[in-house]
Amino acid sequence: MADSDFESITGKFACEVHWGDCDPAGIIFYPTYFRWFDAATWNFFAQAGYDVKRMRAEQLAMPLVAAQCEFRASPVHGDRCEVQSRIARWGGKSFIVVHRVLREDGTLLAEGSETRVWSRRAGPGGPMRGEPIGEDIKLLFRANA
Amino acid sequence: MADSDFESITGKFACEVHWGDCDPAGIIFYPTYFRWFDAATWNFFAQAGYDVKRMRAEQLAMPLVAAQCEFRASPVHGDRCEVQSRIARWGGKSFIVVHRVLREDGTLLAEGSETRVWSRRAGPGGPMRGEPIGEDIKLLFRANA
Amino acid sequence: MADSDFESITGKFACEVHWGDCDPAGIIFYPTYFRWFDAATWNFFAQAGYDVKRMRAEQLAMPLVAAQCEFRASPVHGDRCEVQSRIARWGGKSFIVVHRVLREDGTLLAEGSETRVWSRRAGPGGPMRGEPIGEDIKLLFRANA
Amino acid sequence: MADSDFESITGKFACEVHWGDCDPAGIIFYPTYFRWFDAATWNFFAQAGYDVKRMRAEQLAMPLVAAQCEFRASPVHGDRCEVQSRIARWGGKSFIVVHRVLREDGTLLAEGSETRVWSRRAGPGGPMRGEPIGEDIKLLFRANA
Repeated sequence: MADSDFESITGKFACEVHWGDCDPAGIIFYPTYFRWFDAATWNFFAQAGYDVKRMRAEQLAMPLVAAQCEFRASPVHGDRCEVQSRIARWGGKSFIVVHRVLREDGTLLAEGSETRVWSRRAGPGGPMRGEPIGEDIKLLFRANA
Repeated sequence: MADSDFESITGKFACEVHWGDCDPAGIIFYPTYFRWFDAATWNFFAQAGYDVKRMRAEQLAMPLVAAQCEFRASPVHGDRCEVQSRIARWGGKSFIVVHRVLREDGTLLAEGSETRVWSRRAGPGGPMRGEPIGEDIKLLFRANA
Repeated sequence: MADSDFESITGKFACEVHWGDCDPAGIIFYPTYFRWFDAATWNFFAQAGYDVKRMRAEQLAMPLVAAQCEFRASPVHGDRCEVQSRIARWGGKSFIVVHRVLREDGTLLAEGSETRVWSRRAGPGGPMRGEPIGEDIKLLFRANA
Repeated sequence: MADSDFESITGKFACEVHWGDCDPAGIIFYPTYFRWFDAATWNFFAQAGYDVKRMRAEQLAMPLVAAQCEFRASPVHGDRCEVQSRIARWGGKSFIVVHRVLREDGTLLAEGSETRVWSRRAGPGGPMRGEPIGEDIKLLFRANA
């Protein structure tokens, strides 16, 4: 399976701009988007078959090497949103998740990505080490299977 | 040593109201105080001899059973503050830390407390269990030694 | 209408323990509960007729004078919860909201309360001032109307 | 003054990894870096002459259009850090702040940037609008003046 053929399923994560997510300018405080991205990625993996219980049981984690976001519009308190997540690229041990944040009226609020490493912990309390991402895992996220 | 004789040292934790700690009303978002309380307690224990490295090495933790705060004045972005912490009571396995938050002009902003359990983890990843608070520990926090 | 007769409706706020809501002990970092309480109160008022748009349009806010919580059980990453909120007491200008946090298996995780002041801002950027809570507002939250 | 000649002063912001800034993997939860970046930028502008009081009095704000970060090493609870900030580029109305996060032992933890718009609010509660960044402002940040 060539990566160029890979078309990702889309994860959907519902969220809302709470009072405490906003700053004195009355708009979202931007680190909130990254909190959403993180929760959206866990939710995306759960949708694909790797839920939190399984991740924990198999000592798996997904530490980041990079994250970025472009802010297109400024939501305010009470706005209901959805983060749409897709796998943009599988590397050997790392992968890129792209996220689009849409308000319920369809407005694109933000677009960003996270680069993460597929990692396993060597026993409880042990160090995390990246490990090769198996084809079986990639298949779970494949839309054009 | 009777508890009624115990007079606590005072821990001091410097903090500042950041932009993202404030809400659209332009004042501190109140859960920020509890984030400060938690950091102030860890800092207080470090001052007394139980710093983070020691807590981690000895698998110690301080889970909470209760927390409360009364808000006296509303700080705004840029206000420099100090949390002053004292042990208000030692129980068998639990203890109460009281916190006072003062702005640098001396204004009392908030007063609260945390009730915590002195706990040890049974090995890495094991469950946390409360354990008796030794007299040697109490002595570290005693002002009138 | 005597306060003693007042029986409150119950607000319901769905939430979930995210990865970033947990600390190195693997359980919820306790200020998260207060973030939930705040969001639950706004949600409760929206359910009763005072949604965010109305609050903003009428320059209304609900600053706190006190908050407290008792922690009964420790949820972990992935736990789905519900905050159930009720008005425990109407004062002249202040009111108390009590919150119970339940995990989806029915376990009571936490119980707490917020004491808030019903406040109006004197124009954009003006100071907030407490104002009497009208009977029409109380009626919106009355279960035994 | 050509932008290519511009050499920025360096802002310094002290911070520490608190218990609640870490996740169940025991390392920093990555949105914490962006909270630090935001606070570091406000601190940097204060150092240069635009402190919070002045920003507020002149109705100035610095909304973001983009932010990114690369994570080099994973700090843990108790690590003391410093964010070093510089202006990487002045645009007409926007500017880029680059941040480097160093642990006190000199380890580079993260490198990132924020793209912000120099904005003024049209009266209290009015909309924010970008405005040209004056040469007098740029001069405040110039190391090679």
